[in-house]
Amino acid sequence: EIYAQIEALLVDGPLAGRHAIVTSGPTHEPIDPVRYIANRSSGQQGNAIATALAGLGARVTFITGPAITPPPLGVTVVKVETAQEMLNAVTSALPADIGVFAAAVADWRMSEAATGKIKKAKGEGPPSLTLTENPDILATVSQMSEGRPELVVGFAAETDNIVENATRKRERKGCDWIVANDVSEGTGIMGGSENAVTVIDANGAESWPRATKDDVARRLAQRIAEALT
Amino acid sequence: EIYAQIEALLVDGPLAGRHAIVTSGPTHEPIDPVRYIANRSSGQQGNAIATALAGLGARVTFITGPAITPPPLGVTVVKVETAQEMLNAVTSALPADIGVFAAAVADWRMSEAATGKIKKAKGEGPPSLTLTENPDILATVSQMSEGRPELVVGFAAETDNIVENATRKRERKGCDWIVANDVSEGTGIMGGSENAVTVIDANGAESWPRATKDDVARRLAQRIAEALT
Repeated sequence: EIYAQIEALLVDGPLAGRHAIVTSGPTHEPIDPVRYIANRSSGQQGNAIATALAGLGARVTFITGPAITPPPLGVTVVKVETAQEMLNAVTSALPADIGVFAAAVADWRMSEAATGKIKKAKGEGPPSLTLTENPDILATVSQMSEGRPELVVGFAAETDNIVENATRKRERKGCDWIVANDVSEGTGIMGGSENAVTVIDANGAESWPRATKDDVARRLAQRIAEALT
Repeated sequence: EIYAQIEALLVDGPLAGRHAIVTSGPTHEPIDPVRYIANRSSGQQGNAIATALAGLGARVTFITGPAITPPPLGVTVVKVETAQEMLNAVTSALPADIGVFAAAVADWRMSEAATGKIKKAKGEGPPSLTLTENPDILATVSQMSEGRPELVVGFAAETDNIVENATRKRERKGCDWIVANDVSEGTGIMGGSENAVTVIDANGAESWPRATKDDVARRLAQRIAEALT
């Protein structure tokens, strides 16, 4: 016991020996070869969480969509584009002790992406884009009967009834924690460098003061480390 | 006459005293506060054209959507997000001698962008995105009865029947030249550093060998300068 503790301290931090999967960034869902559906996630919060977990000694697999922010150093980076590719990458990266699903995964993709560029046709109106639900990465991992990470943390980007929506989301998905934030335009959070989150677990909601995304990440990583020890 | 020529040479290049508007990059069309429709334009070709025109002495107004590539130096930069904003910016920047419309403007926008984040609703299927045609910037400027730039150059990103489609596009829009290229996935042109274009004018189609986007831009700027003198 004591030897294990000493060893853990030597390899640096309370999460030494632990494997964390962090997803980050947006996903892009192709409409045709040139167009796609995207979202405003910059990947900053996911980057900061990966860095913070690595800072506490975890081995981090960082699975990122096409984010503007380059991925952090000191982690294993897997680049993907679509939600389906992200799910495949997560599944391949398992087993893990910790899963933090910070990516803004597209809820929907095109039912059938066109293989050629969709053209404006004279006399015809614009196409109507028929969508299909994407796989739900958070729910899939949260509800694994075998090999589920010990701690699964989801994110909820909301624009209204934050705590209520996020609390229901936690129950529906089956994850342990939900980190909820308000991405309404006025907040400047999506794409910005600060975040104001509410962490929701089985015991209720805990609102954290607005802080830099780095500070939010460090506090979250610390909370993760405490939960696992 | 001789004095004017000398003056033009002194202020640097055959396009001295000329104003060029160059549009570049993708446009983003919001679906809701967090999601949008985008396209894979990197803005590299538009950047290179703006730089090349400025290099021949033109005063350049560079109107760019949210491109990954930062805008070039030595030009007046106007940043926009949607097709409608781009059209407004172009109109505001007129009059001009040259209009090069290299932006990959979205053909369609959402009929009504949602003000709150669209949520997955239990039991309901995915939303269907109803689109409306965006203003056609190239056609609008090409068909101006007053104040039309002397030379209007459009771009056609095609995936099949390049020359045929682009020739028809030139006639439909009423521009002077169309620079057509093949953006099929296999070509690596969209987002890549090279381009293989066919320049179509009233006399027919002229195919240029594959070259860097900088070289294509310099050759195009040179052709523009010759056309205006």
